[in-house]
Amino acid sequence: MRHFQEELNELQRRLLEMAGLVESAIHFSVRSLTARDQEQAQRVLRSEATINQMEIEIDGLATRLLALHQPMAGDLRFLTAAIKINSDLERMGDLAVNIVERAMDLMGRPPMKPLVDIPKMAGLAESMVRKSLNAFVNRDPELARSVLLSDDAVDDLKDTVYQDLIHFMESDPSTVAAGVDLIFVAHNLERIADQATNIAEEVLFLVQGIDVRHHAETAEE
Amino acid sequence: MRHFQEELNELQRRLLEMAGLVESAIHFSVRSLTARDQEQAQRVLRSEATINQMEIEIDGLATRLLALHQPMAGDLRFLTAAIKINSDLERMGDLAVNIVERAMDLMGRPPMKPLVDIPKMAGLAESMVRKSLNAFVNRDPELARSVLLSDDAVDDLKDTVYQDLIHFMESDPSTVAAGVDLIFVAHNLERIADQATNIAEEVLFLVQGIDVRHHAETAEE
Repeated sequence: MRHFQEELNELQRRLLEMAGLVESAIHFSVRSLTARDQEQAQRVLRSEATINQMEIEIDGLATRLLALHQPMAGDLRFLTAAIKINSDLERMGDLAVNIVERAMDLMGRPPMKPLVDIPKMAGLAESMVRKSLNAFVNRDPELARSVLLSDDAVDDLKDTVYQDLIHFMESDPSTVAAGVDLIFVAHNLERIADQATNIAEEVLFLVQGIDVRHHAETAEE
Repeated sequence: MRHFQEELNELQRRLLEMAGLVESAIHFSVRSLTARDQEQAQRVLRSEATINQMEIEIDGLATRLLALHQPMAGDLRFLTAAIKINSDLERMGDLAVNIVERAMDLMGRPPMKPLVDIPKMAGLAESMVRKSLNAFVNRDPELARSVLLSDDAVDDLKDTVYQDLIHFMESDPSTVAAGVDLIFVAHNLERIADQATNIAEEVLFLVQGIDVRHHAETAEE
């Protein structure tokens, strides 16, 4: 049996690896949308199976470490945080798949309007995933807090996207179906940002023992 | 210190209590929509604070039991399931709040069309919450499986709602903003049903050690 600390490092390494896959999935889901590229869409769909498999393995590893080592205090909190972060990452993978499904639907319709704010939202969401995981492995509360700020920026962009699309659909009803697809793309990106925010809040709880979860939620809307 | 088994029972009792609150929140969120009733909307918003507080307390209790009793095998699996179910329930409470926000927006617009399928979806979602929690406390795999079947029915209803609303918006663009609100109501109900399905899958894993999580997801779309 390996040393406990070594196993915790392994768990952390695998969470980072999974986060890398999720970040790519977000990136290519929106690339498949803007480039109307079937190949990049397929790429995201293929990566989902890998992400799902990793979730099951990481969950098994964390639960096994809980059972075998019966850790106390800090290590226990680390393991329960890892279990939640793992589940948050897997949900983000699902959300990237939702975006790809909308992108594939949109490929069958005439282009509606140039997409500016949606790629911006995606860029922010990707960097939030990376930062929240780096905050976790480095136990960095400042970095975690910066994720909470980016979440506000994503929410503002989403509001702009919604308003623009609703005006567009009202003025040209032939774009309604495409507009609904794009509204859902923006909605999925917002949810990805929310999941990254959940991770950042877990990190703050882990590092400082401050439970910011529901304060942030109240501030959201 | 109370006996461990007594503490596990207490944890279970509080999860059931939280599930009851979540079920009511779903019910009154859709009632506020169909009745255009501000008072019922406020009722859901007030219950959210209680649900959030319960989540923090249940999470604390489960984590404390993990730390103090360092349980093995079945009890460990029960506690990690309880932590996930707690988080699923809290997310459902958030989704009911999302529905209320759309309902309040819709109260400021002329009524669009009589709502038939959305209340049906809500009825199914409520019963899925109740059944998934009963399956958990009674360790009942049959009941858990019935939740998975209801999820398919909810998905079918959601598809019907989307198609109806898109046709409606295309034929009368003055209904676009209201239609988008209603599409999001249906989307939130679908997500509530998905969370109940997650709980049912956790129960199957707990009772039978079968991980159905990603099989069900594949079948979904």
